Amino acid sequence: MLRHVVLMRWKPGTTAIEKQAIREGLAALPAAIPEIRSYQFGDDAAIVEGNYQFAIVADFENASDFQIYAAHDAHRKLIAERIRPILQDRAAVQYAL
Amino acid sequence: MLRHVVLMRWKPGTTAIEKQAIREGLAALPAAIPEIRSYQFGDDAAIVEGNYQFAIVADFENASDFQIYAAHDAHRKLIAERIRPILQDRAAVQYAL
Repeated sequence: MLRHVVLMRWKPGTTAIEKQAIREGLAALPAAIPEIRSYQFGDDAAIVEGNYQFAIVADFENASDFQIYAAHDAHRKLIAERIRPILQDRAAVQYAL
Repeated sequence: MLRHVVLMRWKPGTTAIEKQAIREGLAALPAAIPEIRSYQFGDDAAIVEGNYQFAIVADFENASDFQIYAAHDAHRKLIAERIRPILQDRAAVQYAL
């Protein structure tokens, strides 16, 4: 199994509507991309100072399935249209489970 | 449930021995801190450019259990003695599962 972890910070001025559009887009990905085994995301709970603002933890059977997800049109369209316009910082790791 | 996600980058020159000491220290935490429900960590798989180098994903029953973990002596000692000396960048999020 391969786990894909992404943390993001949004640009100042990002609206609740823009953030909701990202959550809705992400929620639709598991149905569109059968290679996704597990998909959990959410806003930072604001209990620690200095955190990033949003996390995605996605599990795949192997690196090949992760690559299919990464290159999938539904995923790329979401990144291009909803995430990249408000993205300030991004940190990611993929690691073996 | 509250999920705690941390991504880290090490300083240039960090050795394999230093990184192994961190993995060993982390592996001992679930036995020392019963509030940890699930604890998964690992080195970046090096399949994507520009990633951070290490990930920890830890699940807790609630924010209070997370705070116990965060403040626990075994955790703080590991951070002070093994992580902080080689830590270059850190990104974290806690989010509701």
